[in-house]
Amino acid sequence: MEKLIITIAPTGNVPTKEMNPAVPVTVEEIVADIKACHALGASIAHIHVRDREGRPTSDRNLFQQVLNRLDEEKIDIIKQVSTGARGGENTIGWRGQMLDLNAHMASLSTGSSNFPNSVNANGPDLIEALAAKMYANGIKPEIEAFDVAMISNAKRLLKRGILKGPLHFNLVMNVPGSIEGTPKNLLFMVESLPEGSTWTVSGIGKSQVTMAAMAILLGGHVRTGLEDVLEYEKGVPATNPMLVERVVRIAKELGRKIARPEEAKEILGLK
Amino acid sequence: MEKLIITIAPTGNVPTKEMNPAVPVTVEEIVADIKACHALGASIAHIHVRDREGRPTSDRNLFQQVLNRLDEEKIDIIKQVSTGARGGENTIGWRGQMLDLNAHMASLSTGSSNFPNSVNANGPDLIEALAAKMYANGIKPEIEAFDVAMISNAKRLLKRGILKGPLHFNLVMNVPGSIEGTPKNLLFMVESLPEGSTWTVSGIGKSQVTMAAMAILLGGHVRTGLEDVLEYEKGVPATNPMLVERVVRIAKELGRKIARPEEAKEILGLK
Repeated sequence: MEKLIITIAPTGNVPTKEMNPAVPVTVEEIVADIKACHALGASIAHIHVRDREGRPTSDRNLFQQVLNRLDEEKIDIIKQVSTGARGGENTIGWRGQMLDLNAHMASLSTGSSNFPNSVNANGPDLIEALAAKMYANGIKPEIEAFDVAMISNAKRLLKRGILKGPLHFNLVMNVPGSIEGTPKNLLFMVESLPEGSTWTVSGIGKSQVTMAAMAILLGGHVRTGLEDVLEYEKGVPATNPMLVERVVRIAKELGRKIARPEEAKEILGLK
Repeated sequence: MEKLIITIAPTGNVPTKEMNPAVPVTVEEIVADIKACHALGASIAHIHVRDREGRPTSDRNLFQQVLNRLDEEKIDIIKQVSTGARGGENTIGWRGQMLDLNAHMASLSTGSSNFPNSVNANGPDLIEALAAKMYANGIKPEIEAFDVAMISNAKRLLKRGILKGPLHFNLVMNVPGSIEGTPKNLLFMVESLPEGSTWTVSGIGKSQVTMAAMAILLGGHVRTGLEDVLEYEKGVPATNPMLVERVVRIAKELGRKIARPEEAKEILGLK
């Protein structure tokens, strides 16, 4: 089986230091966590940024600071920016403003779903505009599939040439309001992918370990980090490095070797 | 196997007379089509209304006219109003304004998805408010599930007591932008339903006959009508009665008897 690519998602939209003091929020904190997780085995950094009040934002300048700092510190990790910041305008101008920076990948949801308190709204025009800007800038999309419908739609976009294969998916399981994170649901999602796709899984909350172990067994890849899960186990706050270390240990026991960034680039077809 | 409930969805949001001259748009046309389809075997009418310009609307007054006319003409059919009109405000006040009228059922999407040109936005608060108004008025929700995530979310709402079982689902398959209408996907949706649920299927466009036949075989029920499919077969415009007649014939060949409204009420637990 292919080596395992671990993605670290250190920050996300929702976590605050009140929820877990280890959540990195400033540029310095985010870069420090990515550095530590890279040393432990992460090959991709899934990057969100926060404004001075700690609110999620798509601010190009903040993304630039994180990306440049990672380059300056020579942290050899695949840089993936999120186009899914909540708040702000739901337009290509706002959501896609960081897509001309020095990132390798960017997240792209191919449909709409519910979050616990809001709609994850990604209309057809926005999806196409984000995809076009990514390809124009040599950025590979990671399709964030919050349910089966987004896989169906990615296939349609592939047929129409809006997306270019082979695709890479992140299967986001167990978001309250969206698809339940059960092994059966994950298996069905995986079987629904276009042939030749690569995929990783984000097991949100309590589904974290089950989804990660399933992905390791099925030949997928794993995303972890405080964006996806705040507690290491019931009552024990997690840190980003702890979460990466656990995935590395499970992978070792289950017989998957860990991909380093150069190997991950090869698996994902990044130049 | 239980008798087959046929739902007629004559109008919907999208069809126009330019697309198919048989689309009923005025109150008179809608009532006439429901009457004809009831005589042919339909037990539920899934009702959308249109304003004077033919645009979809949630206008309470128009719904009232259709519902009253059906009563006046003594058309013994289960009256189901749609809360999914596109256009207008996406609020409980607008989307739910017809929920105090003389309907038996109403549609309720338990999540968000994409339509071909827009977002099918049903945020968590709106879902709960619509459900509450339905139950307060003795109206049974039909859960419109456009993908697996909406089934997962219906289960969560059931656990929290926001929804009350047994639930009735309409599995909406093959909307461009949402889950593909394949037998495998339908089977998975059906297997994902909470135990004891009843369900019907809307096979949109080309998936119409396949989805209907699958539902008949699996013990589900069938929705048809110009809302879901405009052509009877390639190049042949459909009418609402033609579509109901085809479902009746397929059911006969496959060995399912047709439920009349009184039997449908029993199956669905309507008083």
